[in-house]
Amino acid sequence: MLESVLKNVREQKPLVHCITNYVTVNDCANMVLACGASPIMADDEQEADQITSVCGGLAINIGTLNSRTIASMQLSGERANALGTPTVFDPVGAGASTLRTETAFMLLEKIRFSAIRGNVSEIRTLAKQNASTQGVDAAAADAVTKENLPDMVRFAKAFSEKTGSIIAMTGEIDIVADMGKAYAVYNGHRMMSQITGTGCMLTSVMAAFLAVNPEARLEAALAAVCAVGLCGEIAAQGAQKMNGGTGTMRMLLIDAMSMLDGKTLNEGARYEIC
Amino acid sequence: MLESVLKNVREQKPLVHCITNYVTVNDCANMVLACGASPIMADDEQEADQITSVCGGLAINIGTLNSRTIASMQLSGERANALGTPTVFDPVGAGASTLRTETAFMLLEKIRFSAIRGNVSEIRTLAKQNASTQGVDAAAADAVTKENLPDMVRFAKAFSEKTGSIIAMTGEIDIVADMGKAYAVYNGHRMMSQITGTGCMLTSVMAAFLAVNPEARLEAALAAVCAVGLCGEIAAQGAQKMNGGTGTMRMLLIDAMSMLDGKTLNEGARYEIC
Amino acid sequence: MLESVLKNVREQKPLVHCITNYVTVNDCANMVLACGASPIMADDEQEADQITSVCGGLAINIGTLNSRTIASMQLSGERANALGTPTVFDPVGAGASTLRTETAFMLLEKIRFSAIRGNVSEIRTLAKQNASTQGVDAAAADAVTKENLPDMVRFAKAFSEKTGSIIAMTGEIDIVADMGKAYAVYNGHRMMSQITGTGCMLTSVMAAFLAVNPEARLEAALAAVCAVGLCGEIAAQGAQKMNGGTGTMRMLLIDAMSMLDGKTLNEGARYEIC
Repeated sequence: MLESVLKNVREQKPLVHCITNYVTVNDCANMVLACGASPIMADDEQEADQITSVCGGLAINIGTLNSRTIASMQLSGERANALGTPTVFDPVGAGASTLRTETAFMLLEKIRFSAIRGNVSEIRTLAKQNASTQGVDAAAADAVTKENLPDMVRFAKAFSEKTGSIIAMTGEIDIVADMGKAYAVYNGHRMMSQITGTGCMLTSVMAAFLAVNPEARLEAALAAVCAVGLCGEIAAQGAQKMNGGTGTMRMLLIDAMSMLDGKTLNEGARYEIC
Repeated sequence: MLESVLKNVREQKPLVHCITNYVTVNDCANMVLACGASPIMADDEQEADQITSVCGGLAINIGTLNSRTIASMQLSGERANALGTPTVFDPVGAGASTLRTETAFMLLEKIRFSAIRGNVSEIRTLAKQNASTQGVDAAAADAVTKENLPDMVRFAKAFSEKTGSIIAMTGEIDIVADMGKAYAVYNGHRMMSQITGTGCMLTSVMAAFLAVNPEARLEAALAAVCAVGLCGEIAAQGAQKMNGGTGTMRMLLIDAMSMLDGKTLNEGARYEIC
Repeated sequence: MLESVLKNVREQKPLVHCITNYVTVNDCANMVLACGASPIMADDEQEADQITSVCGGLAINIGTLNSRTIASMQLSGERANALGTPTVFDPVGAGASTLRTETAFMLLEKIRFSAIRGNVSEIRTLAKQNASTQGVDAAAADAVTKENLPDMVRFAKAFSEKTGSIIAMTGEIDIVADMGKAYAVYNGHRMMSQITGTGCMLTSVMAAFLAVNPEARLEAALAAVCAVGLCGEIAAQGAQKMNGGTGTMRMLLIDAMSMLDGKTLNEGARYEIC
């Protein structure tokens, strides 16, 4: 199943419009290329929605929000909705400032997102739960554990029903929920949190995966989460073998995605329905 | 010939002002340093032309255009023209949105560029030919092949005569044309299109090469195209040897430029007059 | 001494707010993570000071200044002052344009910086001495040498007394001065100047180090200078061993920071009181 999701990306090479932060934008572009798609970044109000209209997917990431780009995010999102173009939202740092939180709420109100990808603190903030965001990282209190997994799944499913979006809540255990159906994903590696942008990269990759798998959106989102997590495992293993640190980890993460084949993804993906 | 172009850069270490996109800007800066020059990025209207005036070369790249930087591009370009400072234009995504296309035409009208570096779709858009841009990549239909090379060379020469600029049209085969004279360049590697920014890097490097080779501009542009293409070959070879992917490729591309010597460039450059 | 500075960062994982340039921002984020802290980038006027208020340290870098972010720098700096949050200033390119120089003076007037980190040309510009900035690099004439070290130390001490800030003036020999006390640091490697952003990375790391060492600010600044310089040595050695160039150097610099332990720092730091 996951195999065919990746195959579609590699064969159809969708254009993916990313309105994203300037911290991790280069890694996002390289990861989108690595998975087989083609990125285009454009965030000016005068062209954002026009660029969206020629793309197969859209990723909106508020990691370095500014007043100039908020309008572009809204315009692009609305255009994507009008065209039925899959759109993924990454509420980076929602909860950390009023601007981010309010912009996230505004976008949620104006745009129907195909998927929302964030850490638990960010997703809880969107759901108006009592979250404890620490900058752009999830608070320790917000970790998904084996113990609270059933509660977290219930929460993700409920928020999916409320928003009509797939909810991809990532951390040590990831949850990917679409209405009544959800997966827990066990891929990933601790070193991924020691480099910047693994969440942003996942969001961009998810937009690429959704772009060309319209009949299997939940599976496409799941495949993206598994693929990036698995690439993180492969990269961490490689870095350890080379006695490398986080610089090496970052390079090998992109390497792994560029060399990932469907068989490796199918065999390496670790998830369960829950 | 190419050897002395590179030698001049390494010896004179020109300052190169880059007004470029935020996606690939770090790689551009590192490539400019790797070839022996010194980059400075500045895109605010209040300082752009003043920065240009202390630099030996200017690169203007519209990859993440916004209304704030368009004025800076124009001011810097005009200042460069007034001072006789070599200026290279990279019309990233011209044809993909009205904003990009119109800005490109405006800049072409206001500024005499020493060189214009783009993919075939972008250059055709500038020449008001029927181009088929796919986001920021050239359309397949716009490939330069052995079959259409004579036509493409004719087109590049004509557009060079019209604009007074060197035209560097890059793809699987690159064409570098200055009025009636042109070269076809066969350097480069397929993996270069799988990382973001190789075109942007070439544009920045070309500005560095032109900055210190005023007597041999066509040769300087040719040397830049050959050098970046050759570094791509070296990097791809290295990546394959290490079983690396596109992350490794990106690192080795910068490595190759930083270690490129004149002899390797002279011997590795593959071009012909046409 | 330096060991405990690093230990505090690794244990307390301070949030560090960076208002920095878009050229080297990704490397800054990865270096902050590598030293054990957590970066957050936010430069919009509507959220900058609020983000500052939840962070333990603030770094302000004018590398790609624009009119939109100047207000954010001031607001964040003032908030940091009000809260007693350590703040480091990096006057990238001060002297290269009126905008940069005047913004630097404005910020110096409005904000009490815990530390100012720049190359000699930039620091001389701030002190209204006759500097000769070359873009964002220090002019050759401004090198700190064994011969002029006593003069340079005197200058740094005097400027520290005038500003009330620790002065970290970096180059082949670095000087870290706090009022009447100063250190000369001999760590570092020539290859560090061949990649972009080593200065910016140091500034961000210094903000992290100052954030959690309030009782030992001079030592924290010294530790940051030694640590980044030592990582540069380790990276250069590694790059040479692998026959790598500046791309490899950049990766290994982040690797080295992520794997640096207190013992290596203590033993590898080369400095003297002067």
